[in-house]
Amino acid sequence: MSIRLGPNRYGKAETRLVRVVKDGPVHHVKDLNVSTSLSGDMEAVHLTGDNAAVLPTDTQKNTAYALAKKHGVGQIEEFALLLARHFVDTQPTVHHARVEIDEYAWTRRGPHSFVRDGGEVRTCVVHCDRDGRSTVVSGLKDLVLMNTTGSEFHGYIVDEYTTLPPTTDRVLATAVAARWRHAGDTPAYGKSYEQVRQCLLDAFADTHSLSLQQTLYAMGERALNTCPEICEIRLAMPNRHHFAVDLSPFGLDNDNEVFHAADRPYGLIEGSVLRDDAPGAGFAWEQETSS
Amino acid sequence: MSIRLGPNRYGKAETRLVRVVKDGPVHHVKDLNVSTSLSGDMEAVHLTGDNAAVLPTDTQKNTAYALAKKHGVGQIEEFALLLARHFVDTQPTVHHARVEIDEYAWTRRGPHSFVRDGGEVRTCVVHCDRDGRSTVVSGLKDLVLMNTTGSEFHGYIVDEYTTLPPTTDRVLATAVAARWRHAGDTPAYGKSYEQVRQCLLDAFADTHSLSLQQTLYAMGERALNTCPEICEIRLAMPNRHHFAVDLSPFGLDNDNEVFHAADRPYGLIEGSVLRDDAPGAGFAWEQETSS
Amino acid sequence: MSIRLGPNRYGKAETRLVRVVKDGPVHHVKDLNVSTSLSGDMEAVHLTGDNAAVLPTDTQKNTAYALAKKHGVGQIEEFALLLARHFVDTQPTVHHARVEIDEYAWTRRGPHSFVRDGGEVRTCVVHCDRDGRSTVVSGLKDLVLMNTTGSEFHGYIVDEYTTLPPTTDRVLATAVAARWRHAGDTPAYGKSYEQVRQCLLDAFADTHSLSLQQTLYAMGERALNTCPEICEIRLAMPNRHHFAVDLSPFGLDNDNEVFHAADRPYGLIEGSVLRDDAPGAGFAWEQETSS
Amino acid sequence: MSIRLGPNRYGKAETRLVRVVKDGPVHHVKDLNVSTSLSGDMEAVHLTGDNAAVLPTDTQKNTAYALAKKHGVGQIEEFALLLARHFVDTQPTVHHARVEIDEYAWTRRGPHSFVRDGGEVRTCVVHCDRDGRSTVVSGLKDLVLMNTTGSEFHGYIVDEYTTLPPTTDRVLATAVAARWRHAGDTPAYGKSYEQVRQCLLDAFADTHSLSLQQTLYAMGERALNTCPEICEIRLAMPNRHHFAVDLSPFGLDNDNEVFHAADRPYGLIEGSVLRDDAPGAGFAWEQETSS
Repeated sequence: MSIRLGPNRYGKAETRLVRVVKDGPVHHVKDLNVSTSLSGDMEAVHLTGDNAAVLPTDTQKNTAYALAKKHGVGQIEEFALLLARHFVDTQPTVHHARVEIDEYAWTRRGPHSFVRDGGEVRTCVVHCDRDGRSTVVSGLKDLVLMNTTGSEFHGYIVDEYTTLPPTTDRVLATAVAARWRHAGDTPAYGKSYEQVRQCLLDAFADTHSLSLQQTLYAMGERALNTCPEICEIRLAMPNRHHFAVDLSPFGLDNDNEVFHAADRPYGLIEGSVLRDDAPGAGFAWEQETSS
Repeated sequence: MSIRLGPNRYGKAETRLVRVVKDGPVHHVKDLNVSTSLSGDMEAVHLTGDNAAVLPTDTQKNTAYALAKKHGVGQIEEFALLLARHFVDTQPTVHHARVEIDEYAWTRRGPHSFVRDGGEVRTCVVHCDRDGRSTVVSGLKDLVLMNTTGSEFHGYIVDEYTTLPPTTDRVLATAVAARWRHAGDTPAYGKSYEQVRQCLLDAFADTHSLSLQQTLYAMGERALNTCPEICEIRLAMPNRHHFAVDLSPFGLDNDNEVFHAADRPYGLIEGSVLRDDAPGAGFAWEQETSS
Repeated sequence: MSIRLGPNRYGKAETRLVRVVKDGPVHHVKDLNVSTSLSGDMEAVHLTGDNAAVLPTDTQKNTAYALAKKHGVGQIEEFALLLARHFVDTQPTVHHARVEIDEYAWTRRGPHSFVRDGGEVRTCVVHCDRDGRSTVVSGLKDLVLMNTTGSEFHGYIVDEYTTLPPTTDRVLATAVAARWRHAGDTPAYGKSYEQVRQCLLDAFADTHSLSLQQTLYAMGERALNTCPEICEIRLAMPNRHHFAVDLSPFGLDNDNEVFHAADRPYGLIEGSVLRDDAPGAGFAWEQETSS
Repeated sequence: MSIRLGPNRYGKAETRLVRVVKDGPVHHVKDLNVSTSLSGDMEAVHLTGDNAAVLPTDTQKNTAYALAKKHGVGQIEEFALLLARHFVDTQPTVHHARVEIDEYAWTRRGPHSFVRDGGEVRTCVVHCDRDGRSTVVSGLKDLVLMNTTGSEFHGYIVDEYTTLPPTTDRVLATAVAARWRHAGDTPAYGKSYEQVRQCLLDAFADTHSLSLQQTLYAMGERALNTCPEICEIRLAMPNRHHFAVDLSPFGLDNDNEVFHAADRPYGLIEGSVLRDDAPGAGFAWEQETSS
């Protein structure tokens, strides 16, 4: 037979886990979306349906709930490492575990009353293998930013399909998705997250932009310069076009005051910024095998 | 022919309008989603395709942009009234205008740099007719709230299909959609909005709940007691079930500490609270003719 | 106290119920999304949290599952009536029941293998009260249609905000949401559904359109003329704009061959078509109390 | 400075392009969602905002429209190759182009009237570089399948967190996302697509399943055995759990007749099937640099 199994993995996706910790009447909340996936000795299950090497996805879900009870959640990177290591340490057929967690923030309104923050989502992706190697990538997504001036775009290639006029003043709006790789063990993931986030916000606000790429690079550079614990950051930033409406047919000027905020198409700028001496990424950036 | 046209309307939905006001280097932003719809002498266009009475939806969109430039946006209720009155005042064939606006909030990060608040969306629905009548309904949606204790549910009907056990301690989580009707002209819509919102948040946090209906009523009552300018409030509050996970198979107890946050199905509690002496609602609550 | 409870209801929304009927190895599938809501003697639960009149939403869900097992599903209108009548017949505190069902279609691929149709969703909304009155509204949504010619738009009002040029040839694209009211007891809901759907499709394809309103009316009229069991139909049809791209900067003409399909804003045309002698609608069209 | 730019690319995402071809009164429609992205000499734009090497995303959009007019669309793989080659052949600063296209199918209802198929979406991802190398990956997504029997799951690992009982009869439901790599130049992408799709459907229906992995592998193997033009296929198949409702409290049995179709969490099975002699994949599977 000349056909064979290639890379594969399986797991439980999007387990919506809420963990409450009670300090008398004062409660604390962690609201997570946990996805685990495992790979290893999985030839038999694919070729013959023999499940002897399979830890069911239902068990993966149960494990997330049970470990959240036993150990609490803490920082999502720590909980992801706990889960991933549990799977590779306890199951000989599991050679590699990947755990991805999204965290939704809540703001306190009373001792046990909360309102959900609707802004960005904090994220992490952790990999562990049975040889003790691990990688931690932290991140955020859905951080929506806008500068209403301080952005230019000109000097680009002009070809037969160019119609865009150059501009020295435009709106720059985006929804940041960022992931950054930790160089080693980071002692305080929560503090690190706050610092990186602050760098992204500040650099976006501070940079007089000649292109969205320049802004993206400045954001990544700021984070790396400020946070020694991280060695690489990857950013995906859609350019959410705001088109100044032509009001001249109505005898009105429009000095970048009235915009149509378009949905599609949008620009999409993606880039990585890293240290020259960053350690090898290993499996840190492995994404889906398909999709 | 025994077949005829019934209620109808038409308009431009979801015009995404961003208005920037510049105070030197300091900019201010209004980010709106505007939907206008008109009704009136529309027999001919339906029966024969004669468009003589039709103000095109494209023109409705242009009007929103032009009036935003000319007059600014101010509070969304004011801008909606301006738009609605424009249509009924300038077009004899338009007997009635409905304008619905959603507003997305942004928080300042610099003189002209902003981060979008991801929380609740502020809303309004305004109606105006050619006889000078108008109604204003303000609101919000996607306000996600949770109490991790202080909620009970028992004493309900038990029939042959009952399996739910009574409880004296559960999580209560919901995403509030609220609309409130102004009794007349409200001088300060922005301040009114903040007050109603505060009442909803406070009453949700303060109420020891025996049912989500009780909480809903308390929220509406608080708003009406605090804000004399409104006369009726309608609330739709899904009960976003948080099920305590059964950890006993793993030798663990679960004193409402670990939850599965379910998507569907969900409870849906809807109710109106109003003053006895509320003036007639007129067309204030008219929604879609179909959908 | 001058504040009181207004219209209200509560229920279980979006119970995802799949019913399999087995005829030996040949299986039949019904895939439903069921939402029930009840109203009645609900003062106490709102004012004091006394649940004595409340049939929990969890029990409503159980009832849907149990009746699906006992009686099968059949046509969704029949199952909705069965459920609604059950609630008003068995619970003295429930004065009114509303049941809404969406049905997702599957196409057979084998005796017990199916592929889901991704097209329109069949819908119904049924109301029953304790006095034996009931109404049945059938419908569909997400029926996406397009005519690439045979559509004009001109002769409309021109005002100071008009920029749209008249056209004698445009694309007409829409996603039909339709609901139609049955005049009385319809013996064969499945056959009726197929006929109405066919009328909507045929009238959309056949009508040379001078406005989307004209097309909408023709679709409703065709259904009423063909299907005596229905007395009113309500249609909501977004005008999904397809803008011919200006290719002249590239030395190319564009005779309605290359389009940009826009997302927002969109036109939204809503209208009702009914028989002159249609019986009163009663509570047939009652929608949400808020939202 | 020890910080540098890593992998990056930029482009225009989700250009919604509809191409109509007219054969007298008979029209033909192609409905596409086109995303292009380019990489190459992009140091300067990131570090200093010098755009001299940048072909704007607006121009990329214009190019898609213009080439659709000039050459038609044909099969999406052909149009993607045309676009990608255009960028690397005409712009010296562009070293690599990636083009992704989704196609939405429409069924004819008249000479120029269509109804949109709501089922699966046909996809492709094409890469071309300036050295003349190219790869073509075809695919589909949102193909929703269900077997109501013929699926078992037992013999898996049992550990301290196992609660799932083994079963010899369950529902197997999934939404297939598949991508398959062409070994070289495929002369007839349309025919190839139909054959692969048929293999996926047939193998899902035919396979008596002991695990979703076994079904996944059988689907990939069937495609590779039938279609010599492809050398690798990657499948992502969520296990959309259908839980048999416990009706015993109501005195009813449930022989896999009444199910709750759950949303989250879900199993997620991902795997690749390939020929032993498949040529190297090169950049065929390169996905986003971040996200």
